Amino acid sequence: MPLITYQTLHPGLSIDCVIFGFYQKEIKVLVLKLKNFEKWSLPGGFVDQTKDVDDEATNILKRRTGLKNVFLRQFHLFGDVKRNSDAHINALFNSKIIDNDSLIWFKQRFVTVGYYALIPFSPSQIFTPDNLSESCEWRSLKDIPEMILDHKEIIDSAHKTLKKELNYQPIGLNLLPEQFTMSELQAVYETILEKPLDRRNFRRKILNFAMLIPTKKQRVGGAYRSPYLYQFDLDKYHLALQNGLSSGW
Amino acid sequence: MPLITYQTLHPGLSIDCVIFGFYQKEIKVLVLKLKNFEKWSLPGGFVDQTKDVDDEATNILKRRTGLKNVFLRQFHLFGDVKRNSDAHINALFNSKIIDNDSLIWFKQRFVTVGYYALIPFSPSQIFTPDNLSESCEWRSLKDIPEMILDHKEIIDSAHKTLKKELNYQPIGLNLLPEQFTMSELQAVYETILEKPLDRRNFRRKILNFAMLIPTKKQRVGGAYRSPYLYQFDLDKYHLALQNGLSSGW
Repeated sequence: MPLITYQTLHPGLSIDCVIFGFYQKEIKVLVLKLKNFEKWSLPGGFVDQTKDVDDEATNILKRRTGLKNVFLRQFHLFGDVKRNSDAHINALFNSKIIDNDSLIWFKQRFVTVGYYALIPFSPSQIFTPDNLSESCEWRSLKDIPEMILDHKEIIDSAHKTLKKELNYQPIGLNLLPEQFTMSELQAVYETILEKPLDRRNFRRKILNFAMLIPTKKQRVGGAYRSPYLYQFDLDKYHLALQNGLSSGW
Repeated sequence: MPLITYQTLHPGLSIDCVIFGFYQKEIKVLVLKLKNFEKWSLPGGFVDQTKDVDDEATNILKRRTGLKNVFLRQFHLFGDVKRNSDAHINALFNSKIIDNDSLIWFKQRFVTVGYYALIPFSPSQIFTPDNLSESCEWRSLKDIPEMILDHKEIIDSAHKTLKKELNYQPIGLNLLPEQFTMSELQAVYETILEKPLDRRNFRRKILNFAMLIPTKKQRVGGAYRSPYLYQFDLDKYHLALQNGLSSGW
């Protein structure tokens, strides 16, 4: 039986998901180690002819990694002719990742739709990779292993998009505990932007977005004076996700 | 001979271009009137198997409208199953826009990649529509005629993207004369955002981007006091297009 029942799939179209995790001032990316092959890949797959492309992205992520209920954002179609080559497909075939019957499917020209998500990272989380893959692991964005095709470029493009979107969209919900300090929120921004931010400017800008509710509580137990805790105003947060931050034009 | 030599095309993939024009505080959109058919369409087409998708967008725009050297930005893949229906294709077939030999090509499921551009508008500009179309015209964004498929949704999505991008990208070059007043630049923003902006806040924010060079010249001849002229610092403008505005994080 061929690996892929390609008659039911949209020809020449694939999906790749870049899942970013946030952990201790580091961005992680979820990657799959292919069986019998010395390269890694993004969780990806094909689109059923009867399904919406955006829905299939969520289905593919679940099938390949076990991750459920992740809100994926579509960010780019990668459509260069040279992104998949015969040499690459032959290597996959020689490693028995692609069988004889599926070769004609894989030798098509493919364009791929990139999706990304930013999710909380838990060191203890176990992923259940599909049967093409040996394992599914978090890797630091600064230490991505050798990837197949243009998957490294897709990761870099997703990160660039995320950085840009910080200029008009809120971030932090689901990445931080329900109540958090100003410096914990600043750390999320600094991690994504890969640069330090001025503490006072950050505070002024973030409060300007009118999206934070100050609580009367303080985080106690640290070595220094106890900082106040904030939480997101959920209505305003979700409104800003839809319409952009109020600091915009 | 079939209308489309579909053997050389990427199956199930199309391109649609939303060309915005800016004229006298109004946004215009370039639309094509199909021959023998009471609906309009965006300039669009298919992707040659041997060409990069982004390059094909430029080629398609030129073929269908005569417009050359337009810098198109890819913004979204529209991939819902219901976006093209048999009923729609049958209507095109009955109007002889699609011939018998091409019917099997058009009856595929299609996903389409949306591109947009913002170009200077000239009332005297003549477009040379392809032989599928009767005419190629500018229409006001507020008065779009009945469009085929999901083309109205694609236009709205492109406009929403443009509004968002104002938060992290410069705009105005090619839309304004080389030297312009602060209120002329403000008019560009107000037109795209469809709302008035506070004059002083706008001035402060724009100058903050450190992208404008004040000239010593004034625009003379108006009824009021002569406003000073500005021009873009081209190096900084192009850098901001690449990396985002300096007012970002």
